[in-house]
Amino acid sequence: MMRTLIKDSINRVGAEIVINGFVQTRRNLGKIIFLDIRDRSGLVQVVCAPSELGEDYDAVKEVRPEFVVEIKGMVNKRNEKNINSALATGTVEILAKGFKILAKAEPLPLDPADEKMGLDVYLDLLPLTLRTEKNRALFKIQAEIINAFRSFLISYDFVEFPCPKIVGASTEGGANVFKVDYFGQPAFLAQSPQFYKQIMVGVFERVFTIGNVYRAEEHATTRHINEYTSLDLEFGFIKDHLDVINLEIEFLRFLKGFLVERVSSELKFWNYQEMKIPKEVPIMKLREAQELIKKETGVDHTAEPDLEPGEEQWLGEYALRQYDSDFIFITHYPTAKRPMYTYPDEADQEFTKSFDLLFRGIEVTTGGQRINDYNQLVANIKKWGLQPENFKFYLEAFKYGMPPEGGLAIGLERLTARLLGIDNIKRATLFPRDLNRIDLQINH
Amino acid sequence: MMRTLIKDSINRVGAEIVINGFVQTRRNLGKIIFLDIRDRSGLVQVVCAPSELGEDYDAVKEVRPEFVVEIKGMVNKRNEKNINSALATGTVEILAKGFKILAKAEPLPLDPADEKMGLDVYLDLLPLTLRTEKNRALFKIQAEIINAFRSFLISYDFVEFPCPKIVGASTEGGANVFKVDYFGQPAFLAQSPQFYKQIMVGVFERVFTIGNVYRAEEHATTRHINEYTSLDLEFGFIKDHLDVINLEIEFLRFLKGFLVERVSSELKFWNYQEMKIPKEVPIMKLREAQELIKKETGVDHTAEPDLEPGEEQWLGEYALRQYDSDFIFITHYPTAKRPMYTYPDEADQEFTKSFDLLFRGIEVTTGGQRINDYNQLVANIKKWGLQPENFKFYLEAFKYGMPPEGGLAIGLERLTARLLGIDNIKRATLFPRDLNRIDLQINH
Repeated sequence: MMRTLIKDSINRVGAEIVINGFVQTRRNLGKIIFLDIRDRSGLVQVVCAPSELGEDYDAVKEVRPEFVVEIKGMVNKRNEKNINSALATGTVEILAKGFKILAKAEPLPLDPADEKMGLDVYLDLLPLTLRTEKNRALFKIQAEIINAFRSFLISYDFVEFPCPKIVGASTEGGANVFKVDYFGQPAFLAQSPQFYKQIMVGVFERVFTIGNVYRAEEHATTRHINEYTSLDLEFGFIKDHLDVINLEIEFLRFLKGFLVERVSSELKFWNYQEMKIPKEVPIMKLREAQELIKKETGVDHTAEPDLEPGEEQWLGEYALRQYDSDFIFITHYPTAKRPMYTYPDEADQEFTKSFDLLFRGIEVTTGGQRINDYNQLVANIKKWGLQPENFKFYLEAFKYGMPPEGGLAIGLERLTARLLGIDNIKRATLFPRDLNRIDLQINH
Repeated sequence: MMRTLIKDSINRVGAEIVINGFVQTRRNLGKIIFLDIRDRSGLVQVVCAPSELGEDYDAVKEVRPEFVVEIKGMVNKRNEKNINSALATGTVEILAKGFKILAKAEPLPLDPADEKMGLDVYLDLLPLTLRTEKNRALFKIQAEIINAFRSFLISYDFVEFPCPKIVGASTEGGANVFKVDYFGQPAFLAQSPQFYKQIMVGVFERVFTIGNVYRAEEHATTRHINEYTSLDLEFGFIKDHLDVINLEIEFLRFLKGFLVERVSSELKFWNYQEMKIPKEVPIMKLREAQELIKKETGVDHTAEPDLEPGEEQWLGEYALRQYDSDFIFITHYPTAKRPMYTYPDEADQEFTKSFDLLFRGIEVTTGGQRINDYNQLVANIKKWGLQPENFKFYLEAFKYGMPPEGGLAIGLERLTARLLGIDNIKRATLFPRDLNRIDLQINH
């Protein structure tokens, strides 16, 4: 008999079906054993009685949580008073007629759903702790964020490309890169697909790439991980950075609808608040933001090149209060503090047409317009104290004609965390790597 | 005025439009200059005359191939005798009324479309050579292969997950891994997402992941690269490896239709032959294949653990001749020569329920059923001379219950190459890394 998915059992009342799944819980009521069985589609209650199961009942007595089983049974309506409205299949239960263990499980070392579990214990046991309803919901939502990003961009003629991660020099010419032994030569793990996506604008005009990026930052915080997923896009024939900002706003609106359509039940497991995206999302220059903070709080950071975490949080609250917006774009970071490819504002060369996007007070995107003129880019590389010779491959894209262009990068795990009210980014990352941990293999 | 895409110009006859694009070619006819302009949607002929352009004509005189331009002009029907049927916009031309250079280009060092160009020259100049119609078609097709893989799997409840690539030990416990300096500790670049996708079967039942994988193989051949894109899937509740094989056949059928639907014009630039996928795709055990080769060719390799390239090619031709199939699955590789997680056939433990898929005589997929029983897996790890302690994290997935499961990995670049009749895999890889090359940065 073909397997029936658990969520479909409610449509098979009175029929005999076969389900496959994991034992979620087991409750003994005298000789009757109740099992909650979980598959990828949902959870259902199964009633196991010796009178119905005969010899198969011995297997039922053996099972514990996470045993993998195949059950043949009759789908019965529950009595009115036994209906479990918290469960999608709560109007039915399955009376087992046949029972087979497909795989055994050792006794669980803890309750995987224990909310008080420490982070280290949670991470040490990921192959088990990821199986809870709440975590399955979380990473299903994350998969749909990826899906939304891709679907949105494909509908606008963006072409996906697989981006190499082993590079011969670091993207930003800076520190914090992981070194790879490449057949005896030094190579590095890319900090971003920046150079490649710009090169690809010359090929396809509009491109995106989704992949791992690497930051060898030696701190362990709640908002940094050393390997994360970057949702990157880049496109040509823009007017300025505002075209990039507007595309991102449009994506966020699309994402909002996409999630409701595809994972509305998963969102309920988390502290999901629908994203507030007003008609006019606030866009503010860094210096304006700093002046505002000075005026409102008395703290004078108007000469600083970036915002501090507390200031980002303040601006997030301000955007919500003043504009009913979960988002605020901060533009015009100082030229001297941004990478050499960042486009300076013609009106004031000290500041760039770059931006960060704060989502509920935390940066989730960096983007902007890039320099597309070959000579200007070469001059900038020199001004940054770097050697144009080291960027020869990248520079070819500009030497042979590049339209005005820009793009952005969204940190997938940060976006997920902000969206679902998760404080520590490691909880929003499937297998987080940090200074102290690569799963159990580096683990102090 | 809003930009019009070049492909849409044929619908705007008699109207004034603005196009943006790259100069593909320039031809002077006395004072009249003809330009072919390329954007992401196509190519169109633009007629530039001093009488129409006035001062803007000076800019026209300056342009060379790969200049980026914005042109305002009138869309005119061509005379019957001037219609270019090879061009999608061949029934029209644009009479320029305004002309602006958006970005200049240096004189090209060569014709990027020169078919006789050597591989090293081609690779040194990728930011330019990728811009040809033929290469844009190629990597658009590759993007659609990724798109097909994902669309197909999502429709079957597979969940995508981002897989880490920095690992604390090599996946297969073998050699050929790149070493990373991880804050002073040794770490490695993953050879495959194998362990993670198996772990994720315990979470979502059906998963896929698309990402870079790494092989530190010290040879430079036409079928190997050191960083490539792996299309990986894994799923639970299978009967055996045949379920995995059947899913792949179904995917290939889907891909065939998907490509025709989405990139039929791009396929024409290459030696694309529609995939022959008969109703019954041949499936043969390794030993049967070797016996057949012995019988037909006299070469006795019936004790070898794998096929040689020449034998794969022979089997590809045999499949085409006998079954009208571009594909043949070879199963039952020897247990001793496959990774420790490979499922041994109950009927003959010396051989595994694993398979390779040959596409026109070259392996493009490896897959099979995996051991899902915890104790059997631990025993195998020991038998392979490895330490279970080193696989503790991976083993948790099995310790706490894992359904019978299997999966496969498709090499994206190899599949692309076979599909389009490309001999050297480096031509089917955007930015190939090999022993001697990381773009221009390691380049002997």
